[in-house]
Amino acid sequence: MTMKEAFVALNWRTVPALPARSPQAHKGSFGHVFAVGGGPGMGGALALASAAAYRVGAGLVTAVGHPSAIPYLAAHLPEAIWRDWPASFADLPEHTVLAVGPGLGQGLAAHDLLLEIGQLSCPQVWDADALNILARFGPELLAADAVRLFTPHPGEAARLLGMTTAAVQADRATVICQLQARYGGHWILKGHHSLLLGTSGHWFCPLGNPGMATGGSGDVLTGILAGLLAVGLDADQALSLGVCLHARAGDRAAARMGEASLLARDILSAIPRALQELTQNHDGN
Amino acid sequence: MTMKEAFVALNWRTVPALPARSPQAHKGSFGHVFAVGGGPGMGGALALASAAAYRVGAGLVTAVGHPSAIPYLAAHLPEAIWRDWPASFADLPEHTVLAVGPGLGQGLAAHDLLLEIGQLSCPQVWDADALNILARFGPELLAADAVRLFTPHPGEAARLLGMTTAAVQADRATVICQLQARYGGHWILKGHHSLLLGTSGHWFCPLGNPGMATGGSGDVLTGILAGLLAVGLDADQALSLGVCLHARAGDRAAARMGEASLLARDILSAIPRALQELTQNHDGN
Amino acid sequence: MTMKEAFVALNWRTVPALPARSPQAHKGSFGHVFAVGGGPGMGGALALASAAAYRVGAGLVTAVGHPSAIPYLAAHLPEAIWRDWPASFADLPEHTVLAVGPGLGQGLAAHDLLLEIGQLSCPQVWDADALNILARFGPELLAADAVRLFTPHPGEAARLLGMTTAAVQADRATVICQLQARYGGHWILKGHHSLLLGTSGHWFCPLGNPGMATGGSGDVLTGILAGLLAVGLDADQALSLGVCLHARAGDRAAARMGEASLLARDILSAIPRALQELTQNHDGN
Amino acid sequence: MTMKEAFVALNWRTVPALPARSPQAHKGSFGHVFAVGGGPGMGGALALASAAAYRVGAGLVTAVGHPSAIPYLAAHLPEAIWRDWPASFADLPEHTVLAVGPGLGQGLAAHDLLLEIGQLSCPQVWDADALNILARFGPELLAADAVRLFTPHPGEAARLLGMTTAAVQADRATVICQLQARYGGHWILKGHHSLLLGTSGHWFCPLGNPGMATGGSGDVLTGILAGLLAVGLDADQALSLGVCLHARAGDRAAARMGEASLLARDILSAIPRALQELTQNHDGN
Repeated sequence: MTMKEAFVALNWRTVPALPARSPQAHKGSFGHVFAVGGGPGMGGALALASAAAYRVGAGLVTAVGHPSAIPYLAAHLPEAIWRDWPASFADLPEHTVLAVGPGLGQGLAAHDLLLEIGQLSCPQVWDADALNILARFGPELLAADAVRLFTPHPGEAARLLGMTTAAVQADRATVICQLQARYGGHWILKGHHSLLLGTSGHWFCPLGNPGMATGGSGDVLTGILAGLLAVGLDADQALSLGVCLHARAGDRAAARMGEASLLARDILSAIPRALQELTQNHDGN
Repeated sequence: MTMKEAFVALNWRTVPALPARSPQAHKGSFGHVFAVGGGPGMGGALALASAAAYRVGAGLVTAVGHPSAIPYLAAHLPEAIWRDWPASFADLPEHTVLAVGPGLGQGLAAHDLLLEIGQLSCPQVWDADALNILARFGPELLAADAVRLFTPHPGEAARLLGMTTAAVQADRATVICQLQARYGGHWILKGHHSLLLGTSGHWFCPLGNPGMATGGSGDVLTGILAGLLAVGLDADQALSLGVCLHARAGDRAAARMGEASLLARDILSAIPRALQELTQNHDGN
Repeated sequence: MTMKEAFVALNWRTVPALPARSPQAHKGSFGHVFAVGGGPGMGGALALASAAAYRVGAGLVTAVGHPSAIPYLAAHLPEAIWRDWPASFADLPEHTVLAVGPGLGQGLAAHDLLLEIGQLSCPQVWDADALNILARFGPELLAADAVRLFTPHPGEAARLLGMTTAAVQADRATVICQLQARYGGHWILKGHHSLLLGTSGHWFCPLGNPGMATGGSGDVLTGILAGLLAVGLDADQALSLGVCLHARAGDRAAARMGEASLLARDILSAIPRALQELTQNHDGN
Repeated sequence: MTMKEAFVALNWRTVPALPARSPQAHKGSFGHVFAVGGGPGMGGALALASAAAYRVGAGLVTAVGHPSAIPYLAAHLPEAIWRDWPASFADLPEHTVLAVGPGLGQGLAAHDLLLEIGQLSCPQVWDADALNILARFGPELLAADAVRLFTPHPGEAARLLGMTTAAVQADRATVICQLQARYGGHWILKGHHSLLLGTSGHWFCPLGNPGMATGGSGDVLTGILAGLLAVGLDADQALSLGVCLHARAGDRAAARMGEASLLARDILSAIPRALQELTQNHDGN
């Protein structure tokens, strides 16, 4: 791909749909998301990401965080299991998808976690402080082959490439290609008209609104992406549906709450209706 | 009963109704459910089960769990009392119904709890890790005579009989009869078209949807069953109404939220309307 | 008063209304309720009572409980201050009303608290374990003169008089008079058609429904009564409005949720509309 | 300004609107509110203020409080980060706005915090116990130049000037001018028809209702003001819009809940609709 090629606008009416749920399905049929983050004082990010994974259909969600995250998970997601930051991820079940970063922080324990996660081969979504730590270690942190989705905002992208945020914003298309060239995997460069770079295409998202520029919004996206991988979408499908769904839910939330008042929880709450709308689009085709 | 006999489809319009509440009733009239589970990191399962017991009419619910379950109970069920995993169940009040398993885990303390519960004669619902521990001990764990409802999913059923999950699914009717033959009691074999085996009948449930294949859904069923025993239904009535009510609430929740987005809380929230619908069915007859 | 005299039916359309709130009022104008209870595992009762006091208009509510009550208060009543069980109530502000008992338990600390509260002269509502401890100490616990409302259910009334619950229920009118004769103060004998005995009248409440026979329902009543005293009603007004409001809210909640599914939170949630209805009744007169 | 000049009535239809959010905006574009308070037992005040800051559009909110505030923040604001009361505010990010006081208490740690905050030059809102501590130290506590909004109720104003509350209420216009003369900054003297004194004008607020005289109402105002500064309003704009928005939200809440039942959370919940109404007013002009 050359930088000259245009990124294609995603279309909410034609993005991949969720697979239909078989009547014979059980919760194991829809994967198991392990959301990893929730350092001291940041349990809310973990709860938002974990809830989003459930809301797009993941069968089971385990939230792996510091014990101080328990009250956040208790309040917002009784359906999830909490697990302490582990000494090891050796016992992950089959069909695990990792969502790493929401509220992770950049302490020593977080570094240790990422060193081990880099050696895992299950599908992974990397966000927030996971990206900041990755920037410090460089691509060698990603020791094992794995499907990986990375979701930097411009500041994180800058750190990942050792440039300024202004330089990122000056040529976002080039930057996302450089990110993929350096780190491999699938990429979302967040911001107005988020750019997406997968293996079978490159897109931008024309949906969304500036009310979504609010704390926790990115955590919801991370959970959506992990959940979509868990229910069986491939990485490119998860990338394009996930970003569109997040933006569409944000637009629905803004219509209801107004852009200024929009909180991350409102995006989360709008997911079910947005998914129903998506299903109707596809049924109507 | 031979395996040849067909299991009868339950009918939402004719399942047993709740008994009418006497104007003279007080909360002691509707029993006292002790939900036992909520090990470290799994307090949400205990909260969901406890809330479901209340929502079907139990007069009082005590949630017995590890102290880490308190934030979950605090957030979701201020109406319930929390009690620490006890050294002894010697002081249970009259009209106690036990719901054992939601988020229990399989640690040493859980084993100790079940050893004691096996010696109690109050009505009991066994689910989740209570079944996994039962599989390890075998039927001799059930030392005392008691009304017991068991609610395995196919994986738990397989462990209880020492076979593979595939073998369970290959002949579910035979399996549920073997479970009853080995362990006594009343059984639900969960899954698509859950099978029920009581003392006066054997049924399957034609309601429900694959959106219910989500973490915590089974905990809600456990609470429903315990609550129905507490308000005075006999075990066969609780079995058939409970499974139907859970499925009907799940179908109502799916209609509102969509199958993919459906969470266990949505099933719980749909119970009141489903019960009102049930009452209207019976009043209309 | 002789036992022969009939208790008068309260009428929702004519019970005392809340005083109108002066435009110049500040939160100190509406009193300060100190709800005292919330022992280990029972913080929910304290939260329900505290919230009810706020919902009928108290200006400020402080919930005095064991530290384990914090998650309950945090989840349900961010508007309230939490204070640990005190070594002393010496610093109570002016216009304090005490609500004692919700989730108090009967431990040593609870006994110490009540010994001190018995010496306070601010208006008080006594409920639940406060009544059980009072039964143990007898009337001498009530050392100071104070406006006191007592709200036993039949079992608590039996303990207060050293008789059986069956004997209480056999002649409720006599029993409530004996309670007042022995302990002074204003009384509600809960149950079907709760009896009320004040200084200027004696009533029964024809409203309410058996769905209200559920854990936490009484805690809501306790909070209502304390809140009504805080906003300026006298004890007889608080008694008659409080019981009617609780029952009316319970009837509204039952209409929405069904009797079986009704939880204490539903009664609490129905208070605002019931109060608006009450205001309209009075404005319409 | 002389005391004779009339304070001008604020008009909900003409108060400053929020700036439109640029499509290119990111969460850093809308500032970062650090709400400081939440001492032991008073985490709810911190949660209410923090949530209000988010609801008027702040991009990021960090709640700085005692660890006992975590359950409150966990329950009500997963979008916020919690940070322990710091040894130092040396690392505050750019575009920080401080909201100091909600649930702060008057302990030693609170004094230390304020000594440091007085030396910071970022915009600040001072409320509640921050004002009580300021009254003890006097104006020299405000060592650094900074945009400061002060929001005393009459009792706090009295302490700040060493007079009685009655004297404050007897001549509120003079008092607010004396407050500004002594302490500098921008002032709101709360109460019926709150007075506002900025640098470019002096107003009173004709909106609001006595249902807002309830615990936590002032915390919501504090958060609103900080959030408005964060999104880019100047101090006079924040002052007039903030007070009007709080009052208008309170009036909307009273219409829905009734004055007696109105809780601080209801004011908070009414902010989004009130802001949408405001936008429509301005679009309609």
